[in-house]
Amino acid sequence: MQLSNRITHITGGGSDGWDVFYKARRMVGEGQPVIELTIGEHDIRTDPVILSAMDKAAKGGHTGYAMVPGIQSLRENVAKRIEERTGVETTFENIMITPGGQAALFAAHLAVCDEGETALYLDPYYATYPGTIRGIGAVAKAVQTHAEDAFQPRAEDIAAKAKGAASLLINTPNNPTGTVYSRETLEGIAQVCKDHELWLISDEVYDTQVWEGTHLSPRALPDMAERTLVVGSMSKSHAMTGSRVGWICGPKDAIENLVNLATHTTYGVAGFIQDAADFALNQGQDLEDKIAEPFRRRRLIAKDILDGQNTVGLIPAQGAMYIMLDIRATGLSGEDFANRLLDEHLIAVMPGESFGQSAAGHVRVAMTVDDESFARALTQLCEFAAKIA
Amino acid sequence: MQLSNRITHITGGGSDGWDVFYKARRMVGEGQPVIELTIGEHDIRTDPVILSAMDKAAKGGHTGYAMVPGIQSLRENVAKRIEERTGVETTFENIMITPGGQAALFAAHLAVCDEGETALYLDPYYATYPGTIRGIGAVAKAVQTHAEDAFQPRAEDIAAKAKGAASLLINTPNNPTGTVYSRETLEGIAQVCKDHELWLISDEVYDTQVWEGTHLSPRALPDMAERTLVVGSMSKSHAMTGSRVGWICGPKDAIENLVNLATHTTYGVAGFIQDAADFALNQGQDLEDKIAEPFRRRRLIAKDILDGQNTVGLIPAQGAMYIMLDIRATGLSGEDFANRLLDEHLIAVMPGESFGQSAAGHVRVAMTVDDESFARALTQLCEFAAKIA
Repeated sequence: MQLSNRITHITGGGSDGWDVFYKARRMVGEGQPVIELTIGEHDIRTDPVILSAMDKAAKGGHTGYAMVPGIQSLRENVAKRIEERTGVETTFENIMITPGGQAALFAAHLAVCDEGETALYLDPYYATYPGTIRGIGAVAKAVQTHAEDAFQPRAEDIAAKAKGAASLLINTPNNPTGTVYSRETLEGIAQVCKDHELWLISDEVYDTQVWEGTHLSPRALPDMAERTLVVGSMSKSHAMTGSRVGWICGPKDAIENLVNLATHTTYGVAGFIQDAADFALNQGQDLEDKIAEPFRRRRLIAKDILDGQNTVGLIPAQGAMYIMLDIRATGLSGEDFANRLLDEHLIAVMPGESFGQSAAGHVRVAMTVDDESFARALTQLCEFAAKIA
Repeated sequence: MQLSNRITHITGGGSDGWDVFYKARRMVGEGQPVIELTIGEHDIRTDPVILSAMDKAAKGGHTGYAMVPGIQSLRENVAKRIEERTGVETTFENIMITPGGQAALFAAHLAVCDEGETALYLDPYYATYPGTIRGIGAVAKAVQTHAEDAFQPRAEDIAAKAKGAASLLINTPNNPTGTVYSRETLEGIAQVCKDHELWLISDEVYDTQVWEGTHLSPRALPDMAERTLVVGSMSKSHAMTGSRVGWICGPKDAIENLVNLATHTTYGVAGFIQDAADFALNQGQDLEDKIAEPFRRRRLIAKDILDGQNTVGLIPAQGAMYIMLDIRATGLSGEDFANRLLDEHLIAVMPGESFGQSAAGHVRVAMTVDDESFARALTQLCEFAAKIA
């Protein structure tokens, strides 16, 4: 039987550059001692105090249908957090709780793009971006960024593709590049959005992982709150990846419509998970700092190792749990480099090509193993690159 | 800023017949002793043994990203359950775990309908059905059923609207009518699906609540497994409404595509919730019977009360946690009846009109309060009807 055109075209077809990831997983499954520096999964579990709060909520009876927009206290807590960090007035009516950041990305695009409309995104990109846009029936159009700009997008490149588009999706701090968009970059992006009547969908799930400079939410720029949907999540900030809880922050009428959509897509988020998220947010900055600390430390380890050689280049790692390495001096593609590193040294990293053509000749290294293993793997990676170059 | 046409048209506009429900909620909020017989929420909580299994899984470390299609053991468990109940060969590759039955309904429609295609559903219907279809950009077309048939759909009525449609959505045991579709009904539906190349989306979330006759899954009928997507859930069968865990069962290639979609819509379901669901299914029939028992008992209470009067008619209550009452002898619409019953007797029931025009002049009563309160409320309802008639 025939499936919809939309679902059968979510993936672009052909290799998606994730072969190395799957090969590494198979090798681990076979018992080989592969060091996985692939995906954004913390090397710690969700804190037991958060899990105890969840258990208490569940056993306390919060097991029936929760309100579709989210429980009141969590919506208020998220609003307060955003208002404190951005200075933009934010109430619970600007917030809808979602089952994770990915669900928020999907809903945000569905809210602002109709079938056949163009949605822009920046290359390199988080793996699900183009498929999310195709999944809602819109046309995914990439805007290239450049290694020589440390992947800070150029406003003129976005403007060149913006005519007639409905939305632009950005991500700062950025996965996969580790770049934190500067004020200048964001002001340029905001101007393009206003000039071309674009919605801005701003994925800020790494907003607690900033190592250099400051995170600026574009919703805080002049006249941007009315055209920005911010995607947030507890996954990275609180090591709650598996709990699937996040949010969208946006104009009140957009949120009202998004609640209507959620009634028909998810019917809300488990109440006991929302209670756990609420508890976690109430722990404040200290817990967020504790979760971010290993990545802050390992990024310094990485800088030290990379300073001691001159084959592999480091894109300024300003935020997020990844570093992006320029391996073009080896003459290999990111894909070939990653494949050989896995085969010859049992170290798994992601080819830059997995995230789009702008990151060709690069590899992304997730800082998600203990410090010692991380340092050893990175040293081996550099030695391997030097040998080839 | 302009939102998408799709999201702003999810609701059909105008009153949706849920005013009584919201009014009742407000009155409860104000402290009035309203007996709520409105929505399908059990009067028990999720069993603590299931919640302990969840806690054990979470504290045991199952807090990272779970596999998007669902954890292997739960997929296998659901497949086994379906194979045992239907006789149709079913493996884990036929199953995708979803964050609840509503997410499964949305994904199933997105998988088989493109923008502008027609998706059929039966009136009366569960409240989210037309909005789910509109949410994926398809055209929602209702097929009327008839009180005089006890709301068993007529194949010829469906056939009359099937030309060019992509799918048909059915629900047995039925919410809101309490009807369990007969073999004859389902064979007629299956024939229409085959004649018109329709996908059948079969919502079977009440399959453990059957009081008369037997539940037949249309996937078990000849040549139907290849064109049927079955929606299932732990909500009603295991009193896990708030846990948001369900599934889609369908052809292997449809499931593969649905997993692709889920990667972009939800990125899977919390692993500890899946472990809890897996544990609950392992408790077998006994637990399901225990959860269904109060509704089985209250349905007999209702029959007794209704047998003792002749103003209010009872649609044969064959399954699910609701009874549908014919109040046309009062000369009132379902909506007026429900409003007056709430205002004058503090009893909240759903107007039939909330579920479509086919149920006009009826009210749906959820059997979701303790036996004594249920009997008292139903007796009052009948006395109220007799006084008016």
